[in-house]
Amino acid sequence: MRSTSEAVDKRLDKLLKTPKGAESQLFEAMRYSLFAGGKRLRPFLVVASADLFEVDKSRAINVAVAIECIHTYSLIHDDLPAMDNDDLRRGKPTAHKAFGEAAAILAGDGLQTLAFEILSSPDTHRDANVRCELIMELAQASGIHGMVGGQMIDLASEGEDLNIGEVTRLQQMKTGALIAFSAEAGAILSKASKQKRQLLHGYARDLGLAFQITDDLLDYEGSPEETGKATQKDAGRGKATFVSLMGLERARQQAEMLAKQAIEHLEDFGGKALLLRALARYVLERRK
Amino acid sequence: MRSTSEAVDKRLDKLLKTPKGAESQLFEAMRYSLFAGGKRLRPFLVVASADLFEVDKSRAINVAVAIECIHTYSLIHDDLPAMDNDDLRRGKPTAHKAFGEAAAILAGDGLQTLAFEILSSPDTHRDANVRCELIMELAQASGIHGMVGGQMIDLASEGEDLNIGEVTRLQQMKTGALIAFSAEAGAILSKASKQKRQLLHGYARDLGLAFQITDDLLDYEGSPEETGKATQKDAGRGKATFVSLMGLERARQQAEMLAKQAIEHLEDFGGKALLLRALARYVLERRK
Repeated sequence: MRSTSEAVDKRLDKLLKTPKGAESQLFEAMRYSLFAGGKRLRPFLVVASADLFEVDKSRAINVAVAIECIHTYSLIHDDLPAMDNDDLRRGKPTAHKAFGEAAAILAGDGLQTLAFEILSSPDTHRDANVRCELIMELAQASGIHGMVGGQMIDLASEGEDLNIGEVTRLQQMKTGALIAFSAEAGAILSKASKQKRQLLHGYARDLGLAFQITDDLLDYEGSPEETGKATQKDAGRGKATFVSLMGLERARQQAEMLAKQAIEHLEDFGGKALLLRALARYVLERRK
Repeated sequence: MRSTSEAVDKRLDKLLKTPKGAESQLFEAMRYSLFAGGKRLRPFLVVASADLFEVDKSRAINVAVAIECIHTYSLIHDDLPAMDNDDLRRGKPTAHKAFGEAAAILAGDGLQTLAFEILSSPDTHRDANVRCELIMELAQASGIHGMVGGQMIDLASEGEDLNIGEVTRLQQMKTGALIAFSAEAGAILSKASKQKRQLLHGYARDLGLAFQITDDLLDYEGSPEETGKATQKDAGRGKATFVSLMGLERARQQAEMLAKQAIEHLEDFGGKALLLRALARYVLERRK
Protein backbone atom coordinates (compact mmCIF):
# COMPACT_ATOMS: atom_id res chain seq x y z
CA MET A 1 0.00 0.00 0.00
CA ARG A 2 2.86 2.37 0.77
CA SER A 3 4.47 1.93 -2.62
CA THR A 4 1.15 2.51 -4.43
CA SER A 5 0.52 5.53 -2.29
CA GLU A 6 3.91 7.01 -3.17
CA ALA A 7 3.43 6.43 -6.89
CA VAL A 8 -0.03 8.06 -6.72
CA ASP A 9 1.28 11.04 -4.76
CA LYS A 10 4.11 11.58 -7.21
CA ARG A 11 1.76 11.54 -10.21
CA LEU A 12 -0.71 13.88 -8.49
CA ASP A 13 2.02 16.29 -7.51
CA LYS A 14 3.18 16.47 -11.11
CA LEU A 15 -0.38 17.01 -12.39
CA LEU A 16 -1.29 19.77 -9.98
CA LYS A 17 1.29 22.49 -9.86
CA THR A 18 -0.21 25.55 -8.16
CA PRO A 19 -0.22 28.52 -10.55
CA LYS A 20 0.54 32.08 -9.43
CA GLY A 21 -2.79 33.78 -10.26
CA ALA A 22 -5.94 34.35 -8.22
CA GLU A 23 -6.90 30.70 -8.84
CA SER A 24 -4.06 29.47 -6.61
CA GLN A 25 -6.40 28.79 -3.66
CA LEU A 26 -8.34 26.36 -5.84
CA PHE A 27 -5.20 24.34 -6.45
CA GLU A 28 -4.16 24.60 -2.82
CA ALA A 29 -7.55 23.25 -1.70
CA MET A 30 -7.28 20.35 -4.14
CA ARG A 31 -3.74 19.50 -3.04
CA TYR A 32 -4.66 19.84 0.64
CA SER A 33 -7.44 17.28 0.31
CA LEU A 34 -5.54 14.94 -2.00
CA PHE A 35 -2.49 14.85 0.27
CA ALA A 36 -4.37 14.65 3.57
CA GLY A 37 -3.09 11.16 4.32
CA GLY A 38 -5.87 9.01 2.91
CA LYS A 39 -5.45 5.23 2.94
CA ARG A 40 -5.36 5.04 -0.89
CA LEU A 41 -7.51 1.93 -0.67
CA ARG A 42 -8.96 2.34 -4.17
CA PRO A 43 -5.58 2.97 -5.85
CA PHE A 44 -4.25 -0.13 -4.10
CA LEU A 45 -7.18 -2.13 -5.49
CA VAL A 46 -6.45 -0.86 -9.00
CA VAL A 47 -2.77 -1.76 -8.77
CA ALA A 48 -3.47 -5.17 -7.23
CA SER A 49 -6.06 -5.87 -9.93
CA ALA A 50 -3.66 -4.72 -12.67
CA ASP A 51 -0.99 -7.03 -11.22
CA LEU A 52 -3.23 -10.04 -11.84
CA PHE A 53 -3.07 -9.37 -15.56
CA GLU A 54 0.47 -8.01 -15.74
CA VAL A 55 -0.73 -4.59 -16.80
CA ASP A 56 1.92 -1.87 -17.13
CA LYS A 57 2.25 -0.19 -13.72
CA SER A 58 2.31 3.36 -15.05
CA ARG A 59 -1.07 2.88 -16.75
CA ALA A 60 -2.58 1.38 -13.63
CA ILE A 61 -1.35 4.39 -11.67
CA ASN A 62 -3.16 6.71 -14.10
CA VAL A 63 -6.44 4.92 -13.43
CA ALA A 64 -5.69 4.87 -9.71
CA VAL A 65 -5.11 8.63 -9.72
CA ALA A 66 -8.36 9.25 -11.59
CA ILE A 67 -10.31 7.19 -9.06
CA GLU A 68 -8.61 8.94 -6.14
CA CYS A 69 -9.61 12.30 -7.66
CA ILE A 70 -13.23 11.16 -7.74
CA HIS A 71 -13.04 9.76 -4.21
CA THR A 72 -11.45 12.96 -2.87
CA TYR A 73 -14.00 15.19 -4.61
CA SER A 74 -16.79 13.16 -2.99
CA LEU A 75 -15.24 13.57 0.46
CA ILE A 76 -14.87 17.35 0.02
CA HIS A 77 -18.48 17.76 -1.10
CA ASP A 78 -19.89 15.31 1.47
CA ASP A 79 -18.19 17.25 4.28
CA LEU A 80 -19.83 20.57 3.28
CA PRO A 81 -22.17 22.26 5.79
CA ALA A 82 -25.20 21.60 3.57
CA MET A 83 -24.33 17.89 3.43
CA ASP A 84 -22.75 16.02 6.38
CA ASN A 85 -21.34 19.24 7.93
CA ASP A 86 -18.06 17.72 9.12
CA ASP A 87 -15.26 19.86 10.52
CA LEU A 88 -12.65 17.13 10.74
CA ARG A 89 -11.31 14.65 8.21
CA ARG A 90 -8.23 12.51 8.70
CA GLY A 91 -7.40 14.50 11.82
CA LYS A 92 -7.31 17.84 9.98
CA PRO A 93 -9.86 20.59 9.28
CA THR A 94 -12.05 19.70 6.31
CA ALA A 95 -11.45 21.57 3.03
CA HIS A 96 -14.22 24.11 3.54
CA LYS A 97 -12.94 24.83 7.07
CA ALA A 98 -9.44 25.43 5.72
CA PHE A 99 -10.23 27.23 2.43
CA GLY A 100 -13.84 28.38 2.66
CA GLU A 101 -16.92 26.84 1.11
CA ALA A 102 -16.59 28.34 -2.36
CA ALA A 103 -13.05 27.05 -2.87
CA ALA A 104 -14.09 23.64 -1.47
CA ILE A 105 -17.03 23.31 -3.87
CA LEU A 106 -14.83 24.30 -6.81
CA ALA A 107 -12.00 22.01 -5.69
CA GLY A 108 -14.44 19.09 -5.73
CA ASP A 109 -15.79 20.12 -9.12
CA GLY A 110 -12.29 20.45 -10.56
CA LEU A 111 -11.15 17.09 -9.19
CA GLN A 112 -14.07 15.38 -10.88
CA THR A 113 -13.18 16.98 -14.22
CA LEU A 114 -9.54 16.06 -13.78
CA ALA A 115 -10.42 12.39 -13.33
CA PHE A 116 -12.03 12.20 -16.74
CA GLU A 117 -9.27 14.22 -18.34
CA ILE A 118 -6.70 11.73 -17.03
CA LEU A 119 -8.61 8.73 -18.32
CA SER A 120 -9.02 10.27 -21.79
CA SER A 121 -5.24 10.61 -22.20
CA PRO A 122 -3.35 8.11 -24.39
CA ASP A 123 -0.98 7.64 -21.41
CA THR A 124 -3.76 5.65 -19.73
CA HIS A 125 -4.04 3.16 -22.60
CA ARG A 126 -3.05 3.26 -26.22
CA ASP A 127 -6.41 1.80 -27.31
CA ALA A 128 -9.06 4.54 -27.21
CA ASN A 129 -11.78 1.89 -26.86
CA VAL A 130 -10.28 0.87 -23.53
CA ARG A 131 -10.08 4.51 -22.43
CA CYS A 132 -13.74 5.05 -23.33
CA GLU A 133 -14.73 1.93 -21.43
CA LEU A 134 -12.87 3.16 -18.35
CA ILE A 135 -14.59 6.56 -18.65
CA MET A 136 -18.04 5.02 -19.09
CA GLU A 137 -17.56 2.68 -16.11
CA LEU A 138 -16.17 5.41 -13.87
CA ALA A 139 -19.03 7.74 -14.80
CA GLN A 140 -21.61 5.08 -14.04
CA ALA A 141 -19.97 4.13 -10.74
CA SER A 142 -19.69 7.72 -9.54
CA GLY A 143 -22.79 9.32 -11.07
CA ILE A 144 -26.50 9.54 -10.35
CA HIS A 145 -27.02 5.79 -10.43
CA GLY A 146 -23.92 5.23 -8.28
CA MET A 147 -22.05 7.39 -5.78
CA VAL A 148 -23.97 10.67 -6.23
CA GLY A 149 -27.32 8.86 -6.13
CA GLY A 150 -26.22 6.96 -3.00
CA GLN A 151 -25.28 10.18 -1.22
CA MET A 152 -28.70 11.64 -2.08
CA ILE A 153 -30.43 8.57 -0.64
CA ASP A 154 -28.23 8.78 2.45
CA LEU A 155 -29.15 12.42 3.08
CA ALA A 156 -32.82 11.94 2.26
CA SER A 157 -33.06 8.93 4.59
CA GLU A 158 -31.80 10.55 7.80
CA GLY A 159 -34.28 9.73 10.53
CA GLU A 160 -36.01 7.15 8.31
CA ASP A 161 -36.28 3.48 9.29
CA LEU A 162 -34.31 1.76 6.53
CA ASN A 163 -34.10 -2.00 6.55
CA ILE A 164 -30.95 -4.01 5.84
CA GLY A 165 -31.83 -4.38 2.16
CA GLU A 166 -32.22 -0.62 1.79
CA VAL A 167 -28.99 0.16 3.66
CA THR A 168 -27.19 -2.39 1.50
CA ARG A 169 -28.49 -0.79 -1.71
CA LEU A 170 -27.54 2.67 -0.44
CA GLN A 171 -24.00 1.55 0.37
CA GLN A 172 -23.56 -0.33 -2.87
CA MET A 173 -24.38 2.89 -4.71
CA LYS A 174 -22.56 5.32 -2.42
CA THR A 175 -19.28 3.45 -1.93
CA GLY A 176 -19.58 -0.04 -3.44
CA ALA A 177 -19.77 0.97 -7.09
CA LEU A 178 -16.46 2.88 -7.03
CA ILE A 179 -14.74 0.08 -5.10
CA ALA A 180 -16.03 -2.42 -7.67
CA PHE A 181 -14.75 -0.29 -10.55
CA SER A 182 -11.34 -0.07 -8.84
CA ALA A 183 -11.13 -3.85 -8.58
CA GLU A 184 -12.23 -4.37 -12.18
CA ALA A 185 -9.89 -1.75 -13.63
CA GLY A 186 -7.06 -4.23 -14.19
CA ALA A 187 -9.37 -6.50 -16.14
CA ILE A 188 -10.54 -3.60 -18.31
CA LEU A 189 -6.97 -2.41 -18.93
CA SER A 190 -5.92 -5.89 -20.06
CA LYS A 191 -9.13 -6.66 -21.99
CA ALA A 192 -9.59 -9.73 -19.82
CA SER A 193 -12.54 -12.08 -20.23
CA LYS A 194 -16.00 -11.20 -18.97
CA GLN A 195 -15.74 -14.16 -16.62
CA LYS A 196 -12.54 -12.90 -14.94
CA ARG A 197 -14.13 -9.49 -14.57
CA GLN A 198 -17.17 -11.05 -12.94
CA LEU A 199 -14.94 -12.73 -10.34
CA LEU A 200 -13.37 -9.39 -9.47
CA HIS A 201 -16.80 -7.79 -9.34
CA GLY A 202 -17.95 -10.43 -6.85
CA TYR A 203 -14.80 -9.94 -4.78
CA ALA A 204 -15.28 -6.18 -4.71
CA ARG A 205 -18.97 -6.35 -3.87
CA ASP A 206 -18.24 -8.43 -0.77
CA LEU A 207 -15.15 -6.43 0.11
CA GLY A 208 -17.05 -3.14 -0.23
CA LEU A 209 -19.81 -4.26 2.11
CA ALA A 210 -17.28 -5.61 4.63
CA PHE A 211 -15.53 -2.25 4.42
CA GLN A 212 -18.77 -0.38 5.06
CA ILE A 213 -19.64 -2.54 8.06
CA THR A 214 -16.21 -1.97 9.61
CA ASP A 215 -16.74 1.75 8.90
CA ASP A 216 -19.97 1.61 10.87
CA LEU A 217 -18.17 -0.32 13.63
CA LEU A 218 -15.40 2.29 13.78
CA ASP A 219 -17.97 5.09 13.93
CA TYR A 220 -19.67 3.27 16.80
CA GLU A 221 -16.65 2.04 18.73
CA GLY A 222 -13.74 4.21 17.62
CA SER A 223 -12.45 7.49 19.00
CA PRO A 224 -11.71 10.69 17.04
CA GLU A 225 -8.03 10.28 18.07
CA GLU A 226 -7.85 6.88 16.41
CA THR A 227 -9.97 7.49 13.31
CA GLY A 228 -9.07 11.16 12.66
CA LYS A 229 -12.72 12.13 12.30
CA ALA A 230 -15.75 12.68 14.50
CA THR A 231 -17.29 9.41 15.72
CA GLN A 232 -20.76 8.37 16.93
CA LYS A 233 -22.09 10.56 14.14
CA ASP A 234 -24.51 8.05 12.67
CA ALA A 235 -26.49 7.58 15.88
CA GLY A 236 -26.53 11.35 16.42
CA ARG A 237 -28.13 11.84 13.01
CA GLY A 238 -30.58 8.99 13.38
CA LYS A 239 -28.91 7.12 10.53
CA ALA A 240 -29.68 3.47 10.02
CA THR A 241 -26.37 1.57 9.83
CA PHE A 242 -25.39 -2.07 9.77
CA VAL A 243 -24.52 -1.75 13.48
CA SER A 244 -27.84 -0.16 14.44
CA LEU A 245 -29.74 -2.77 12.43
CA MET A 246 -27.78 -5.91 13.33
CA GLY A 247 -26.16 -5.11 16.64
CA LEU A 248 -22.43 -5.07 17.30
CA GLU A 249 -21.81 -8.80 17.43
CA ARG A 250 -23.74 -9.75 14.32
CA ALA A 251 -22.25 -6.87 12.36
CA ARG A 252 -18.75 -8.06 13.26
CA GLN A 253 -19.59 -11.62 12.20
CA GLN A 254 -21.11 -10.38 8.97
CA ALA A 255 -17.97 -8.40 8.09
CA GLU A 256 -15.85 -11.50 8.70
CA MET A 257 -18.13 -13.66 6.62
CA LEU A 258 -18.06 -11.15 3.75
CA ALA A 259 -14.25 -10.86 3.82
CA LYS A 260 -13.98 -14.65 3.68
CA GLN A 261 -16.47 -14.76 0.83
CA ALA A 262 -14.55 -12.02 -1.01
CA ILE A 263 -11.40 -14.15 -0.84
CA GLU A 264 -13.25 -17.17 -2.23
CA HIS A 265 -13.95 -15.30 -5.48
CA LEU A 266 -10.20 -15.13 -6.05
CA GLU A 267 -9.55 -18.87 -6.21
CA ASP A 268 -9.09 -18.96 -10.00
CA PHE A 269 -6.31 -16.38 -9.80
CA GLY A 270 -4.16 -18.59 -7.55
CA GLY A 271 -1.04 -17.08 -5.99
CA LYS A 272 -1.29 -13.95 -8.10
CA ALA A 273 -4.15 -12.66 -5.95
CA LEU A 274 -1.95 -12.39 -2.86
CA LEU A 275 -2.45 -8.63 -2.48
CA LEU A 276 -6.21 -8.76 -2.97
CA ARG A 277 -6.45 -11.47 -0.29
CA ALA A 278 -4.32 -9.43 2.10
CA LEU A 279 -6.58 -6.43 1.51
CA ALA A 280 -9.67 -8.39 2.52
CA ARG A 281 -7.97 -9.27 5.81
CA TYR A 282 -6.77 -5.69 6.31
CA VAL A 283 -10.35 -4.41 6.04
CA LEU A 284 -11.30 -6.41 9.12
CA GLU A 285 -8.33 -5.30 11.19
CA ARG A 286 -8.08 -1.61 10.30
CA ARG A 287 -8.42 0.95 13.10
CA LYS A 288 -9.16 3.95 10.87
CA MET B 1 -32.47 27.63 -32.13
CA ARG B 2 -35.91 26.33 -31.35
CA SER B 3 -35.40 23.09 -33.26
CA THR B 4 -32.04 22.46 -31.54
CA SER B 5 -33.62 23.22 -28.22
CA GLU B 6 -36.41 20.72 -28.83
CA ALA B 7 -34.00 17.98 -29.88
CA VAL B 8 -31.85 18.62 -26.79
CA ASP B 9 -34.89 18.59 -24.50
CA LYS B 10 -36.13 15.33 -25.97
CA ARG B 11 -32.75 13.62 -25.50
CA LEU B 12 -32.41 14.94 -21.93
CA ASP B 13 -35.91 13.83 -21.04
CA LYS B 14 -35.12 10.32 -22.24
CA LEU B 15 -31.83 10.23 -20.33
CA LEU B 16 -33.22 11.43 -17.02
CA LYS B 17 -36.26 9.51 -15.97
CA THR B 18 -36.94 10.17 -12.28
CA PRO B 19 -36.77 6.92 -10.30
CA LYS B 20 -39.11 6.11 -7.43
CA GLY B 21 -36.61 5.84 -4.55
CA ALA B 22 -35.28 8.40 -2.07
CA GLU B 23 -32.98 9.72 -4.80
CA SER B 24 -35.94 11.16 -6.75
CA GLN B 25 -35.27 14.73 -5.54
CA LEU B 26 -31.82 14.56 -7.11
CA PHE B 27 -33.36 13.81 -10.48
CA GLU B 28 -36.07 16.42 -9.98
CA ALA B 29 -33.43 19.07 -9.21
CA MET B 30 -31.46 18.13 -12.32
CA ARG B 31 -34.56 18.23 -14.53
CA TYR B 32 -35.75 21.50 -12.97
CA SER B 33 -32.48 23.22 -13.85
CA LEU B 34 -32.08 21.61 -17.27
CA PHE B 35 -35.61 22.52 -18.33
CA ALA B 36 -35.66 26.04 -16.86
CA GLY B 37 -35.88 27.69 -20.27
CA GLY B 38 -32.21 28.33 -21.03
CA LYS B 39 -31.28 29.77 -24.40
CA ARG B 40 -29.41 26.60 -25.45
CA LEU B 41 -26.75 28.82 -26.97
CA ARG B 42 -24.01 26.18 -26.69
CA PRO B 43 -26.10 23.35 -28.18
CA PHE B 44 -26.97 25.66 -31.06
CA LEU B 45 -23.27 26.32 -31.61
CA VAL B 46 -22.56 22.58 -31.68
CA VAL B 47 -25.32 21.91 -34.19
CA ALA B 48 -24.35 24.87 -36.38
CA SER B 49 -20.72 23.76 -36.30
CA ALA B 50 -21.69 20.16 -37.11
CA ASP B 51 -23.76 21.44 -40.04
CA LEU B 52 -20.65 22.92 -41.63
CA PHE B 53 -19.17 19.44 -41.94
CA GLU B 54 -22.38 17.52 -42.58
CA VAL B 55 -22.05 15.61 -39.32
CA ASP B 56 -24.94 13.31 -38.41
CA LYS B 57 -27.45 15.39 -36.42
CA SER B 58 -28.05 12.76 -33.73
CA ARG B 59 -24.34 12.68 -32.86
CA ALA B 60 -24.15 16.44 -32.70
CA ILE B 61 -27.12 16.43 -30.33
CA ASN B 62 -25.26 14.03 -28.03
CA VAL B 63 -22.35 16.44 -27.78
CA ALA B 64 -24.76 19.36 -27.38
CA VAL B 65 -26.49 17.57 -24.51
CA ALA B 66 -23.17 16.83 -22.79
CA ILE B 67 -22.15 20.50 -23.01
CA GLU B 68 -25.54 21.65 -21.74
CA CYS B 69 -25.14 19.31 -18.74
CA ILE B 70 -21.79 20.95 -17.94
CA HIS B 71 -23.21 24.44 -18.43
CA THR B 72 -26.22 23.70 -16.22
CA TYR B 73 -24.08 22.15 -13.48
CA SER B 74 -21.96 25.31 -13.47
CA LEU B 75 -25.02 27.54 -13.12
CA ILE B 76 -26.39 25.46 -10.22
CA HIS B 77 -23.08 25.57 -8.35
CA ASP B 78 -22.38 29.24 -9.15
CA ASP B 79 -25.78 30.22 -7.74
CA LEU B 80 -25.10 28.55 -4.36
CA PRO B 81 -25.03 30.76 -1.24
CA ALA B 82 -21.28 30.19 -0.79
CA MET B 83 -20.65 31.31 -4.38
CA ASP B 84 -22.74 34.05 -6.07
CA ASN B 85 -25.72 33.55 -3.73
CA ASP B 86 -28.42 34.06 -6.34
CA ASP B 87 -32.09 33.41 -5.60
CA LEU B 88 -33.38 33.86 -9.13
CA ARG B 89 -32.37 32.31 -12.45
CA ARG B 90 -34.36 32.58 -15.65
CA GLY B 91 -37.22 34.09 -13.66
CA LYS B 92 -37.52 31.10 -11.31
CA PRO B 93 -36.06 30.24 -7.90
CA THR B 94 -32.53 28.83 -8.24
CA ALA B 95 -32.05 25.08 -7.68
CA HIS B 96 -30.94 25.39 -4.06
CA LYS B 97 -33.94 27.62 -3.31
CA ALA B 98 -36.30 25.06 -4.82
CA PHE B 99 -34.65 21.80 -3.63
CA GLY B 100 -32.25 22.74 -0.84
CA GLU B 101 -28.49 23.12 -0.97
CA ALA B 102 -27.56 19.45 -0.63
CA ALA B 103 -29.72 18.36 -3.57
CA ALA B 104 -28.42 21.31 -5.62
CA ILE B 105 -24.77 20.43 -4.98
CA LEU B 106 -25.43 16.78 -5.87
CA ALA B 107 -27.48 17.72 -8.94
CA GLY B 108 -24.51 19.74 -10.21
CA ASP B 109 -22.11 16.90 -9.43
CA GLY B 110 -24.32 14.37 -11.20
CA LEU B 111 -24.77 16.55 -14.28
CA GLN B 112 -21.02 16.82 -14.66
CA THR B 113 -20.64 13.03 -14.49
CA LEU B 114 -23.47 12.56 -16.96
CA ALA B 115 -21.74 14.77 -19.52
CA PHE B 116 -18.70 12.51 -19.64
CA GLU B 117 -20.82 9.37 -19.65
CA ILE B 118 -22.69 10.65 -22.72
CA LEU B 119 -19.49 11.46 -24.59
CA SER B 120 -18.00 8.03 -23.84
CA SER B 121 -20.94 6.27 -25.51
CA PRO B 122 -20.55 4.82 -29.03
CA ASP B 123 -23.74 6.72 -29.91
CA THR B 124 -21.66 9.91 -29.87
CA HIS B 125 -19.19 8.64 -32.45
CA ARG B 126 -18.22 5.20 -33.66
CA ASP B 127 -14.49 6.02 -33.48
CA ALA B 128 -13.35 5.87 -29.85
CA ASN B 129 -10.44 8.20 -30.67
CA VAL B 130 -12.93 10.92 -31.53
CA ARG B 131 -14.86 10.26 -28.31
CA CYS B 132 -11.67 10.52 -26.27
CA GLU B 133 -10.75 13.75 -28.00
CA LEU B 134 -14.17 15.21 -27.19
CA ILE B 135 -13.79 14.13 -23.57
CA MET B 136 -10.29 15.57 -23.26
CA GLU B 137 -11.35 18.88 -24.81
CA LEU B 138 -14.49 19.16 -22.70
CA ALA B 139 -12.52 18.37 -19.54
CA GLN B 140 -9.92 21.01 -20.35
CA ALA B 141 -12.53 23.63 -21.23
CA SER B 142 -14.57 23.04 -18.08
CA GLY B 143 -11.87 22.14 -15.54
CA ILE B 144 -9.34 23.91 -13.38
CA HIS B 145 -7.59 25.59 -16.32
CA GLY B 146 -10.95 26.58 -17.83
CA MET B 147 -14.41 27.15 -16.37
CA VAL B 148 -13.76 26.06 -12.77
CA GLY B 149 -10.51 28.04 -12.62
CA GLY B 150 -12.28 31.09 -14.06
CA GLN B 151 -15.01 30.94 -11.44
CA MET B 152 -12.34 30.74 -8.72
CA ILE B 153 -10.61 33.84 -10.13
CA ASP B 154 -13.96 35.61 -10.36
CA LEU B 155 -14.76 34.94 -6.70
CA ALA B 156 -11.24 35.69 -5.49
CA SER B 157 -11.17 38.99 -7.39
CA GLU B 158 -14.31 40.60 -5.94
CA GLY B 159 -13.37 44.08 -4.80
CA GLU B 160 -10.02 43.88 -6.63
CA ASP B 161 -9.04 46.30 -9.36
CA LEU B 162 -8.69 44.04 -12.39
CA ASN B 163 -7.59 45.57 -15.67
CA ILE B 164 -9.09 44.73 -19.07
CA GLY B 165 -6.46 42.08 -19.75
CA GLU B 166 -7.25 40.33 -16.47
CA VAL B 167 -11.03 40.49 -16.98
CA THR B 168 -10.54 39.12 -20.50
CA ARG B 169 -8.46 36.17 -19.22
CA LEU B 170 -11.03 35.48 -16.48
CA GLN B 171 -13.88 35.44 -18.98
CA GLN B 172 -12.02 33.34 -21.49
CA MET B 173 -11.55 30.72 -18.79
CA LYS B 174 -14.96 31.03 -17.14
CA THR B 175 -17.19 31.10 -20.20
CA GLY B 176 -15.02 31.40 -23.32
CA ALA B 177 -13.43 27.95 -23.19
CA LEU B 178 -16.75 26.08 -23.18
CA ILE B 179 -18.13 28.30 -25.97
CA ALA B 180 -14.99 27.61 -28.00
CA PHE B 181 -15.35 23.87 -27.46
CA SER B 182 -18.98 24.04 -28.58
CA ALA B 183 -18.00 25.79 -31.82
CA GLU B 184 -15.17 23.33 -32.51
CA ALA B 185 -17.22 20.22 -31.76
CA GLY B 186 -18.38 19.82 -35.36
CA ALA B 187 -14.79 19.90 -36.57
CA ILE B 188 -13.77 17.25 -34.02
CA LEU B 189 -16.74 15.03 -34.90
CA SER B 190 -15.85 15.17 -38.60
CA LYS B 191 -12.07 14.96 -38.12
CA ALA B 192 -11.73 18.23 -40.01
CA SER B 193 -8.36 19.86 -40.65
CA LYS B 194 -6.49 21.72 -37.93
CA GLN B 195 -6.85 24.86 -40.05
CA LYS B 196 -10.67 24.66 -40.16
CA ARG B 197 -10.72 24.09 -36.44
CA GLN B 198 -8.57 27.16 -35.91
CA LEU B 199 -11.06 29.29 -37.83
CA LEU B 200 -13.88 28.10 -35.60
CA HIS B 201 -11.74 28.71 -32.54
CA GLY B 202 -11.13 32.29 -33.64
CA TYR B 203 -14.84 32.76 -34.32
CA ALA B 204 -15.78 31.41 -30.90
CA ARG B 205 -13.16 33.45 -29.05
CA ASP B 206 -14.55 36.68 -30.48
CA LEU B 207 -18.16 35.54 -30.11
CA GLY B 208 -17.57 34.52 -26.48
CA LEU B 209 -16.14 37.91 -25.58
CA ALA B 210 -18.93 39.73 -27.39
CA PHE B 211 -21.39 37.56 -25.47
CA GLN B 212 -19.73 38.43 -22.17
CA ILE B 213 -19.76 42.14 -22.88
CA THR B 214 -23.47 42.04 -23.75
CA ASP B 215 -23.96 40.07 -20.51
CA ASP B 216 -22.29 42.90 -18.61
CA LEU B 217 -24.42 45.41 -20.51
CA LEU B 218 -27.60 43.50 -19.63
CA ASP B 219 -26.56 43.35 -15.98
CA TYR B 220 -25.98 47.11 -16.06
CA GLU B 221 -28.96 48.24 -18.15
CA GLY B 222 -31.47 45.41 -17.98
CA SER B 223 -34.29 44.78 -15.54
CA PRO B 224 -35.02 41.56 -13.63
CA GLU B 225 -38.31 41.34 -15.55
CA GLU B 226 -36.51 41.29 -18.87
CA THR B 227 -33.52 39.12 -18.00
CA GLY B 228 -35.14 36.76 -15.50
CA LYS B 229 -32.36 37.29 -12.98
CA ALA B 230 -31.20 39.95 -10.55
CA THR B 231 -29.45 42.85 -12.28
CA GLN B 232 -26.89 45.47 -11.20
CA LYS B 233 -25.22 42.65 -9.29
CA ASP B 234 -21.71 43.27 -10.56
CA ALA B 235 -21.53 46.83 -9.28
CA GLY B 236 -23.03 45.75 -5.96
CA ARG B 237 -20.24 43.22 -5.52
CA GLY B 238 -17.49 45.54 -6.64
CA LYS B 239 -16.80 43.35 -9.67
CA ALA B 240 -14.70 44.71 -12.47
CA THR B 241 -16.62 44.20 -15.75
CA PHE B 242 -16.16 45.35 -19.30
CA VAL B 243 -18.77 48.04 -18.64
CA SER B 244 -17.12 49.32 -15.46
CA LEU B 245 -13.73 49.35 -17.17
CA MET B 246 -14.69 50.75 -20.59
CA GLY B 247 -17.86 52.67 -19.97
CA LEU B 248 -21.20 51.95 -21.62
CA GLU B 249 -20.50 53.39 -25.04
CA ARG B 250 -17.10 51.83 -25.59
CA ALA B 251 -18.33 48.46 -24.31
CA ARG B 252 -21.16 48.53 -26.83
CA GLN B 253 -18.76 49.41 -29.67
CA GLN B 254 -16.37 46.69 -28.56
CA ALA B 255 -19.12 44.04 -28.65
CA GLU B 256 -20.09 45.14 -32.15
CA MET B 257 -16.50 45.05 -33.31
CA LEU B 258 -16.00 41.56 -31.87
CA ALA B 259 -19.19 40.21 -33.47
CA LYS B 260 -18.05 41.58 -36.81
CA GLN B 261 -14.62 40.06 -36.34
CA ALA B 262 -16.19 36.72 -35.37
CA ILE B 263 -18.08 36.69 -38.67
CA GLU B 264 -14.88 37.40 -40.63
CA HIS B 265 -13.36 34.11 -39.41
CA LEU B 266 -16.16 32.29 -41.24
CA GLU B 267 -15.32 33.50 -44.74
CA ASP B 268 -13.82 30.19 -45.88
CA PHE B 269 -17.03 28.34 -45.02
CA GLY B 270 -19.11 30.42 -47.43
CA GLY B 271 -22.87 30.05 -47.36
CA LYS B 272 -22.71 27.04 -45.05
CA ALA B 273 -21.90 29.28 -42.09
CA LEU B 274 -25.28 31.03 -42.27
CA LEU B 275 -26.33 29.96 -38.77
CA LEU B 276 -23.04 30.88 -37.14
CA ARG B 277 -23.22 34.34 -38.71
CA ALA B 278 -26.81 34.80 -37.52
CA LEU B 279 -25.72 33.81 -34.01
CA ALA B 280 -23.07 36.52 -33.91
CA ARG B 281 -25.74 39.08 -34.78
CA TYR B 282 -28.17 37.62 -32.23
CA VAL B 283 -25.59 38.06 -29.45
CA LEU B 284 -25.67 41.83 -30.01
CA GLU B 285 -29.45 42.10 -30.07
CA ARG B 286 -30.47 39.75 -27.26
CA ARG B 287 -32.41 41.16 -24.33
CA LYS B 288 -31.73 38.30 -21.92
